[in-house]
Amino acid sequence: MRVEWAGSGPELLVTIDRGGATGLRTQLEDQLRAAIRAGRLAGGEPLPSSRELARALGLSRGLVQDAYAQLQAEGYLTSRPGSATRVAAAAATPAAASPEPAGPPDRHRVADFRHGVPDLGLAPREAWAWAMREVCRTAPDTAFDYGEAAGRPRLRAVLASYLTRVRAVVATPGDLLVCAGMQQALSLVTTVLAAEGIGTVAFEDPGSFAGLAGTPVPVDEHGLDVAALRRRGARAVLVTPAHQWPTGVVLSGERRLELISWARDCDGFVIEDDYDAEFRYDRDPVGSLQGLAPDRVISLGTVSKSLTPALRLGWIVAPARLLAPLTRVKNLADRGSPGLDQLALALLLESGRYDRHLRKVRAEYAARRETLVTTLSRLAPGLPVTGLAAGFHAILHLPAGTSEAAFVAAAARRGVGLYGMAALHRTVTDPPPRLILGFGNTSRHEIEAGLSAVADLLRDPTRAGSGGG
Amino acid sequence: MRVEWAGSGPELLVTIDRGGATGLRTQLEDQLRAAIRAGRLAGGEPLPSSRELARALGLSRGLVQDAYAQLQAEGYLTSRPGSATRVAAAAATPAAASPEPAGPPDRHRVADFRHGVPDLGLAPREAWAWAMREVCRTAPDTAFDYGEAAGRPRLRAVLASYLTRVRAVVATPGDLLVCAGMQQALSLVTTVLAAEGIGTVAFEDPGSFAGLAGTPVPVDEHGLDVAALRRRGARAVLVTPAHQWPTGVVLSGERRLELISWARDCDGFVIEDDYDAEFRYDRDPVGSLQGLAPDRVISLGTVSKSLTPALRLGWIVAPARLLAPLTRVKNLADRGSPGLDQLALALLLESGRYDRHLRKVRAEYAARRETLVTTLSRLAPGLPVTGLAAGFHAILHLPAGTSEAAFVAAAARRGVGLYGMAALHRTVTDPPPRLILGFGNTSRHEIEAGLSAVADLLRDPTRAGSGGG
Repeated sequence: MRVEWAGSGPELLVTIDRGGATGLRTQLEDQLRAAIRAGRLAGGEPLPSSRELARALGLSRGLVQDAYAQLQAEGYLTSRPGSATRVAAAAATPAAASPEPAGPPDRHRVADFRHGVPDLGLAPREAWAWAMREVCRTAPDTAFDYGEAAGRPRLRAVLASYLTRVRAVVATPGDLLVCAGMQQALSLVTTVLAAEGIGTVAFEDPGSFAGLAGTPVPVDEHGLDVAALRRRGARAVLVTPAHQWPTGVVLSGERRLELISWARDCDGFVIEDDYDAEFRYDRDPVGSLQGLAPDRVISLGTVSKSLTPALRLGWIVAPARLLAPLTRVKNLADRGSPGLDQLALALLLESGRYDRHLRKVRAEYAARRETLVTTLSRLAPGLPVTGLAAGFHAILHLPAGTSEAAFVAAAARRGVGLYGMAALHRTVTDPPPRLILGFGNTSRHEIEAGLSAVADLLRDPTRAGSGGG
Repeated sequence: MRVEWAGSGPELLVTIDRGGATGLRTQLEDQLRAAIRAGRLAGGEPLPSSRELARALGLSRGLVQDAYAQLQAEGYLTSRPGSATRVAAAAATPAAASPEPAGPPDRHRVADFRHGVPDLGLAPREAWAWAMREVCRTAPDTAFDYGEAAGRPRLRAVLASYLTRVRAVVATPGDLLVCAGMQQALSLVTTVLAAEGIGTVAFEDPGSFAGLAGTPVPVDEHGLDVAALRRRGARAVLVTPAHQWPTGVVLSGERRLELISWARDCDGFVIEDDYDAEFRYDRDPVGSLQGLAPDRVISLGTVSKSLTPALRLGWIVAPARLLAPLTRVKNLADRGSPGLDQLALALLLESGRYDRHLRKVRAEYAARRETLVTTLSRLAPGLPVTGLAAGFHAILHLPAGTSEAAFVAAAARRGVGLYGMAALHRTVTDPPPRLILGFGNTSRHEIEAGLSAVADLLRDPTRAGSGGG
């Protein structure tokens, strides 16, 4: 049964539905609130007395009085002794609705060589569900508390031992802080370094410098040019020694030692982004730079490439004296990373499921790399491919004079997502044309189909034209 | 079978175990690395030739060469043509081990009236494991990607509809950003307001002001003193309208309107910390302040009290023009909150399990509140108890002249954790003695036992003495 009341004017209509799932008072409150918000009941306007409205709607007077009291407590209505209840003057301002953001269009129908993402289809769905179930089943009640800002002791212990074993890092659990991945790690580290008087961070050029207002330093075939770094005067540098992003160069042993000497000489720090070191194919991974000089290197790691970016878990291994300030900054940032996720990751590592997952995906990436190399040597035998020692991207060097942008645009018209390297340069104004071919989330079939779809361009890059994309 | 080599001196001992689980080359590398790090092999020291070491250990020469090459690539060794392989000079600096932080001692054996935590024993273990399993089983592959910095669209839609229904918030999914809980929400909001020229945030006194360098404004029995706020000149204020922290006062309807007028007059913002609004016992929750003025109120929420703080999930409902800068700051902070956790929370809300959990814990907290009130009226009939309208803490007013610190210390000696309110005052130098009795994570039995253990102090607070704790 529905009862309606059209009160002060045609704009206000209260409908009470006795058969509805919602309580009568809630219905009344909701509709009055909505009318006030939308401006249908204007500020200052008197409401009917509770007796009058109760009669009109067939409700008890007490119910209407309760509803008025509730809306008064919330600030929608005002009431003074001896006067009618009125709509509060400040309450009626309709909010503009924001449009929902639209997703990206599905432009790359044939293949997308996007980089920086692992295979999303290989995400460890079962392993993660298993680990979370185990945590929820067996963790003590205290595991459901806030927990230490630096991370759960169990995960820190497991990570310290894992990184010692696999990355040749030198770390006790107390040298390690759990965070939300590479982006947060960088934000925390730069904040702490700034407080230490190191306000500028140098970084590799080409490279990615998300949010960093720093000093670019060139990269050559041995990695970062340390002599150039020395001339910059910075006291911190962000490097990707295991697999330079994006060139794929591995920082040479000699350069590693030069870099450590530089840090010692200037009382500075090397920030090591160890983002995809677990994926090395032809031989053992190159150990972490941190192991060489634990007092000078801050090493950052993440599970974004090894498991999935959707977990937002990473770590910072830092010299002892930076750990306390890093923990303070992390505490102010978010009071620590999610505890259940941390315990689930610890369990994946302890149970061997993490290693097993890595072996499985590493084999798949190795096969894709093989497909990429084979297909390119067939379709573009003259174009050098580099940066394949680790990770899941390669660099394809286009002939001098090719327009990188035109090549990318021509590929897009064929439904193939390609990405040039020009945008990752900071100082070089006219870099050689190169493509970053990511194959983390690109299947073997897509690699073949995608490259075949641009075979004519690979054979004769001038066909792409010289214009921008 | 174990073969040993004591090379250059008694300090270096390489032990190769052919029956071991670890590969021979890895054993050799690990031990050389450890010896270099520990300084047992000094910088500049020559290593035996690969031929010599291979013979001594019964290994193939190629294996030793590979190990040397690996350590050279990592910067531990150097080699020049025609010269012996040597330990790199920069490589040997032992790192000081940091001690593991010790956990807090179990001081409160009888009962701990700690506030700010929900019952950890009631954490939704099964529901969370279920939700995560469903997400891992059914989510599309794209769910395992980084995702939008503002949060997963599905969670934003579910939260917008939940908050509209339960908290009378006015929000579309586009007005809402998912974050890591209250601490991060505050950090993001203050960063964005500072960029808008609002560098100072006023806050309630008494109150908690984690990391805020702001302006304290007194709280009376109607909530924040808005007239005092007007005199401060700040253009943003952080308030807890539903249940003031710590006094437990509900911000009156009149004050709500004054607060909105203040924000309009100064072109400022009210930051609403809606931290425990879901727990109101005697009547309906007071609707969110945001619903009154969506263009002037930034409303912050979290699941830390309703589910568990270990999830680190919360949200910000903000005026449309602040959403884009908030999203940019969130992206720089951590690229967005964990996607799988977000989808699991969406599922809990959609499936009704969230509401069911709330009903269950609300009933338990209501029973504890009853136990607390009954026990106090028996043991301390003369002492006023306030702030019980919502949440899970109450304020016990001690007689004037009682030393809050001495009372707390005397209780601690009886194994009872009590917490005074003095530390939460900023401007008042000699506040009246009050205790904050948290009962979120204190069972009914513990409430009775804890209060009984301090019954003599409650009867005669002078017994606690007048000294500090």
